[in-house]
Amino acid sequence: MANITIHEVGLRDGLQIEEQAVPTERKLAWIERLAAAGLRMIQVGSFVHPQKVPQMADTDDLFRRLTAAPREPGVVYSGLVLNERGLERGLACGVDYFCMGVSASETHSRKNTGMGTGEAADRIIAMARAAAGAGKGVQVSVQSAFGCGFEGAVPAARVLDLVRRFLEAGLTTVSLADTAGHANPAQVGALVGAALALDSRLALTCHFHETYGLGLANACAAFRAGVTSFESAFGGLGGCPFTAVAAGNVCTEDLAHLFERMGMAAGVDIAAVSEVTKDAARFFGRALPGVVHRTGPIPYPAA
Amino acid sequence: MANITIHEVGLRDGLQIEEQAVPTERKLAWIERLAAAGLRMIQVGSFVHPQKVPQMADTDDLFRRLTAAPREPGVVYSGLVLNERGLERGLACGVDYFCMGVSASETHSRKNTGMGTGEAADRIIAMARAAAGAGKGVQVSVQSAFGCGFEGAVPAARVLDLVRRFLEAGLTTVSLADTAGHANPAQVGALVGAALALDSRLALTCHFHETYGLGLANACAAFRAGVTSFESAFGGLGGCPFTAVAAGNVCTEDLAHLFERMGMAAGVDIAAVSEVTKDAARFFGRALPGVVHRTGPIPYPAA
Repeated sequence: MANITIHEVGLRDGLQIEEQAVPTERKLAWIERLAAAGLRMIQVGSFVHPQKVPQMADTDDLFRRLTAAPREPGVVYSGLVLNERGLERGLACGVDYFCMGVSASETHSRKNTGMGTGEAADRIIAMARAAAGAGKGVQVSVQSAFGCGFEGAVPAARVLDLVRRFLEAGLTTVSLADTAGHANPAQVGALVGAALALDSRLALTCHFHETYGLGLANACAAFRAGVTSFESAFGGLGGCPFTAVAAGNVCTEDLAHLFERMGMAAGVDIAAVSEVTKDAARFFGRALPGVVHRTGPIPYPAA
Repeated sequence: MANITIHEVGLRDGLQIEEQAVPTERKLAWIERLAAAGLRMIQVGSFVHPQKVPQMADTDDLFRRLTAAPREPGVVYSGLVLNERGLERGLACGVDYFCMGVSASETHSRKNTGMGTGEAADRIIAMARAAAGAGKGVQVSVQSAFGCGFEGAVPAARVLDLVRRFLEAGLTTVSLADTAGHANPAQVGALVGAALALDSRLALTCHFHETYGLGLANACAAFRAGVTSFESAFGGLGGCPFTAVAAGNVCTEDLAHLFERMGMAAGVDIAAVSEVTKDAARFFGRALPGVVHRTGPIPYPAA
């Protein structure tokens, strides 16, 4: 039984920055293989305007086809929604589990939504309650929770205020996202600890990026502080594809490998996820970040 | 004042696996720039047979030239010795600080030295005492301390036994080296904690590799367990240059960046070390592992 939960977000947070569109059939094949590899929470796409992010234009179609097909027992398909229109689309095409978020950085929030953090939180809380009222799973996230590419440091108090507002609205499944990859392990330990101390009902997920190479160390720090749920992307997808920088999401198979080595169970077939990563590397015609899909896992059980 | 100590081993553990010989003048330039960047402990090379590792053939010459030249205040040049002949050479050419080690893996020890761990330890302890008796600094290391490419798991008891033997011989400066890159953060925390509990005189250093991408997370775990001294290589040199795997030593500038973000002081000019890495990448004509030499550090102080 897995005691680490991995929410696979490669199809969304990974692909959304790729220029080369992945055909729907290939996305479906990847999703099927990721589910067969043990991943039980898979983010299928986001409900953005198709002209804004063409890579996500088939999100509704994907959900319709996935909900019509048989699936591995226990698999949940999540979708990211940014606004009420996205929520409507998601409800119409069979999303199981809605993800939505607010940036703790005022500047980042305004650039993304035209609203400051406070107003954006009002809106997201209303949307989240509507999704929950429709019987759907809901996760609300705090974006730029550990630093912001525009503003720099983001005070922990701003993040904790948002978490408190979510909790007061009855939203207890919360993700802290290091959108810019600025988190460090000391900060992660402190902020996660403070968030978990707010309310014992809080089910906390962390989302880290490898922009500065700190993702796995941050995941470890979050784990030590009590987090057992993480968002990650197969192959570490999500970095800028036009540089040599290994800068994507934390890599799913590397994260699973890390926790397996620490004696935890991630419930993931690392070799099978690695095969999906290799297929994606062939598809995009470049090496993907992440290590274990190239090396394989350490070839004996942890002591 | 630095409260994290970095022992730069790129010139030795980084270059020893490179086919393309680095000219002595370029090594001297790199050493000079690394010292100017704040690194106070720089491993210059190893005293192996020049035919076995041609890349290290100029080690004696390097030491002679370095000891004859002015140096940054406080800079220590270290050299790795494998046997008595190497120690003689090192004493003759002006090494300040001798590093030598024993593998905790019987198979690894026999392959490297023709001796099992016990016999190799006798020999290294005698050599270390001779070096100390000559007024030199000495660090003794346990290689394959966290796992072995030949044997798999290495029992912590074997590692602690070696550390105990070193301590009984009066050798209190000890490095635990993850030669194969197999360590995980839980194991590191436990083994480092147990080692530090042996004797309050123990000055412990850790040496990690990124073979499986766990190096920085392991360094963090060692730090949490009480270690503030690390060995690392600029540019993450030391991986296999013929694969795309980022598999070298922990990268000096990334390690310094990590600790700086955590509010510690590594005493290292990260931008200046990054420039040496970029020069090495140009020299070898390939991208080097490590991230911060490409991204720069997170562009504002940690909160």
